[in-house]
Amino acid sequence: MKLTQFALGLVLSVVSMFAQAAIPWTFQPLPDQPPIPEGNPQSEAKIGLGRQLFFDPRLSVTGTHSCNSCHNLAAGGEDGRALPVGVYGRKGRRSTLTLWNAAYHTVYNWDGSAGTLEEQAERHILDPKVMGMPDGAQLVARIAAIPGYRTQFEESFGETGVTFTNIAKAIASFERTLVTTGSAFDDFLRGDKQAISTQAQRGFEEFIEQRCASCHFWVNLAGPQPGLALQQGQGFYELFPNHPGTDYEERYGLADDIGRYDHSQIESDRRMWRVPSLRNVAITAPYFHNGAVKTLNEAVRVMAKTQVRHELSEAQVADIVAFLRTLTGEFPKIELPRLPATPGRTAVAGHDD
Amino acid sequence: MKLTQFALGLVLSVVSMFAQAAIPWTFQPLPDQPPIPEGNPQSEAKIGLGRQLFFDPRLSVTGTHSCNSCHNLAAGGEDGRALPVGVYGRKGRRSTLTLWNAAYHTVYNWDGSAGTLEEQAERHILDPKVMGMPDGAQLVARIAAIPGYRTQFEESFGETGVTFTNIAKAIASFERTLVTTGSAFDDFLRGDKQAISTQAQRGFEEFIEQRCASCHFWVNLAGPQPGLALQQGQGFYELFPNHPGTDYEERYGLADDIGRYDHSQIESDRRMWRVPSLRNVAITAPYFHNGAVKTLNEAVRVMAKTQVRHELSEAQVADIVAFLRTLTGEFPKIELPRLPATPGRTAVAGHDD
Repeated sequence: MKLTQFALGLVLSVVSMFAQAAIPWTFQPLPDQPPIPEGNPQSEAKIGLGRQLFFDPRLSVTGTHSCNSCHNLAAGGEDGRALPVGVYGRKGRRSTLTLWNAAYHTVYNWDGSAGTLEEQAERHILDPKVMGMPDGAQLVARIAAIPGYRTQFEESFGETGVTFTNIAKAIASFERTLVTTGSAFDDFLRGDKQAISTQAQRGFEEFIEQRCASCHFWVNLAGPQPGLALQQGQGFYELFPNHPGTDYEERYGLADDIGRYDHSQIESDRRMWRVPSLRNVAITAPYFHNGAVKTLNEAVRVMAKTQVRHELSEAQVADIVAFLRTLTGEFPKIELPRLPATPGRTAVAGHDD
Repeated sequence: MKLTQFALGLVLSVVSMFAQAAIPWTFQPLPDQPPIPEGNPQSEAKIGLGRQLFFDPRLSVTGTHSCNSCHNLAAGGEDGRALPVGVYGRKGRRSTLTLWNAAYHTVYNWDGSAGTLEEQAERHILDPKVMGMPDGAQLVARIAAIPGYRTQFEESFGETGVTFTNIAKAIASFERTLVTTGSAFDDFLRGDKQAISTQAQRGFEEFIEQRCASCHFWVNLAGPQPGLALQQGQGFYELFPNHPGTDYEERYGLADDIGRYDHSQIESDRRMWRVPSLRNVAITAPYFHNGAVKTLNEAVRVMAKTQVRHELSEAQVADIVAFLRTLTGEFPKIELPRLPATPGRTAVAGHDD
């Protein structure tokens, strides 16, 4: 937060200045290409390899869970559930975040505990409640035993070949292609005023009026511009619930999780959360860090009440939801990869019974 | 069995007659198109809908398991594990069978308990250890609440729209496209003698010599021709282990499951099993109904010993495995479908926490 106070102050003034007149400059269409880190340049071979790894359940200890099991790219890039289910039927404690457009974030997970997509991938592979690999070395041994993978790692990474770092790098490279440009809202931002309905336009104005745009702005409607206001690894966090003691807080257990404090152990991080993107929000129900709210309409009511102490009318809710639906983008076609086989033997021996 | 005794007798004589000379006529390349049942003609719309349903985890009660979770089409059409893991982390008791080329079978599941692909789909959706839907009506309610699906069911099935039967029909239609023609063995059968190595050719001769071909013959290397010798719903079963009391039986628990008796309650069905296809067998380890055998080489040893009481030399095993590897086909490209959303709300409410 400290790092972004200046940027945020600027944004708030500009938003209020332009709200009545034109589209605030703090809203920008999603660029075709997200930032690519210097240490992991994109290549076609690496993206293809990452796509295979992303869909490969052999990355989990039991051979049952691929990245796609929870981050479902046939849908909203998450699992449509309140809480995820990992290996051995283990329940996670926070709702799965979408991977669509994740590359425009500067930190990962609800508490910002991973600074890069690479780190996020590594942590989820090793998390006992997610993919449950005991350590990176065991995964490397499993992957390196698959001839098709060995060749491909050499193509993508040269001599270093199959390493845990390279597995994460390949997955992250693929994830940086998961971009949903072409939403109606992007067309609207580019000047096509007919691209979204008049109700959605009213909803957009209401969105700004209700100060939703104080946090949900810039290309990913998730905060300051990566690379300029925020460097990779620096997060944009907000307090949630901001106004304590609402009925919603009680009903949905919104304050039961200590948020970023859990990771940072800094007192001021209690109930601080990374601001999530609103792109494709209409297809990623249920909502919030605990997935307790089942519908988008209710999520809008909850946010207005807990964050800015407003009680919205049903018409206001409907308008804002109409706007939020314009944030659903176009999803790139993804070919199901062919996973290289471990010919004639099982890859998950010892973890399959 | 009774229904196929005549056919089997014929096959055995022909196999032994031609074994030394030419390729027995009981081996035929996989046709491009499997049999299509009259009650469920193929259509592009229905196949597309079935592809979506196949990849849609909302078909399971928890929203965690799609058909593809166990029948992984990025790989061997199964899960690479000994035993499958269904909803709530529940373990199945028999190993997942591949769906590649399943349309050339006449019964489904290890015990032949489903007579059609449609029935197999229905049973797995409702099986508490697989997808766990309490009944078809609840799935229909869930799917019919998704506008994108409603429209597509009307396109595919007209007025009847979303019904449990139609869900199964669409899935089965998609599954009938899961055909892996183009294996090296098919090229060999078509006359290209260089298509498989001399070791694989020796292995093929050994395969016939060892009487593997008594059961593993015809287009799918799984028994008599569907539609001619066997009608849909009539199975081709064999006793396994055929010779009781081997070390393998003990070591791998091969006789611990009563097989088809479990389904039919007919005494002579004890430890009778549907003969599985050998197509793509090199990429579907581990092996047998309980998935207890981890490697293809060991599976070959086990079969020779338990079925025909032969102890194979390591050279014989290697040759037969070289032949079996030529049965891996070409996999059709599959585009990951876009799943229609339940806009603004979760589809699995009540089953996601």
